[in-house]
Amino acid sequence: MTEKEGSPGARVVLQQCVHATLQVKPAGEHEDAQFVQIDRGMVIYICFFKGATEDILPKMVSTILNLRLCESDSGKMASVLELPGSVLIVPQATLGGKAKGRGMQYHNNIGKDEGLRLYNAFVSLCEKELKNPNTNTADATDASVNVTLKHGTYGNRQVLKLDTNGPYTHLMEF
Amino acid sequence: MTEKEGSPGARVVLQQCVHATLQVKPAGEHEDAQFVQIDRGMVIYICFFKGATEDILPKMVSTILNLRLCESDSGKMASVLELPGSVLIVPQATLGGKAKGRGMQYHNNIGKDEGLRLYNAFVSLCEKELKNPNTNTADATDASVNVTLKHGTYGNRQVLKLDTNGPYTHLMEF
Repeated sequence: MTEKEGSPGARVVLQQCVHATLQVKPAGEHEDAQFVQIDRGMVIYICFFKGATEDILPKMVSTILNLRLCESDSGKMASVLELPGSVLIVPQATLGGKAKGRGMQYHNNIGKDEGLRLYNAFVSLCEKELKNPNTNTADATDASVNVTLKHGTYGNRQVLKLDTNGPYTHLMEF
Repeated sequence: MTEKEGSPGARVVLQQCVHATLQVKPAGEHEDAQFVQIDRGMVIYICFFKGATEDILPKMVSTILNLRLCESDSGKMASVLELPGSVLIVPQATLGGKAKGRGMQYHNNIGKDEGLRLYNAFVSLCEKELKNPNTNTADATDASVNVTLKHGTYGNRQVLKLDTNGPYTHLMEF
């Protein structure tokens, strides 16, 4: 699962969707909750572990966005950049949990400030890559298709609705 | 993540839901697709690896159903048995994938016949545990609440719709 030895710096779960909606701001006393949404594309649940640094981000982003995990209209597998599809990034600290008795512990998770910094950097790198895909394949992204990147608010409850044609759940560690 | 050394026999991803719908039979020429659904509860995505045997199932089922992963109405964490909540089991062979170049390989996944046998045994054990929860806590399941177990069709495309109040995604290996 991991490509290098030792403890991973980040864990991601990837799911394919035809539509997804995520709350980015809960309802306040005088305002409705705010949501973002994407259509066809990929949901990236992400969690960073203690000791993770920005060094791992370029390879993470490149790997996740270029892996052929999406089913194209022809039935052939394509990356989310090739599809082209949209991306929804969901911060998901629970992914770092480890069972201890009947409870879960999150002792290996990165601290909040550091986690937020890495999360923001990860989102920025994904945005950059989606705008300027550097695929070395013939079936490069059609710039006329409307793809978008949305992301959840770090630290918030991630109220998510997911509509899939098969989530094709994948796990990766970096 | 794993409790014992060596390669795991199974990998599960757990998500909490307020409602979930899963296709169990695709539409045919003369019939509509068939779906199952649950309300509040837990979705269990499951994948078995080569070498897995039935020996691991009792501990898997007991651990998953008794771990306090669900938020109760009071805000306290509870197991799906304690909640009590429903369970939706989704066979998810993609969880065994390993990146190789830009593609995914599934060489460590269990064979189809053996995987189906373990999947069926896992579902049966979960059903038994949900009917006769053997929790040793005071807040035992209220038998009057309508909880249910549904599961996907092994080998099919898992067309899933998920509605959450925060998926609280967890990963476990056994």
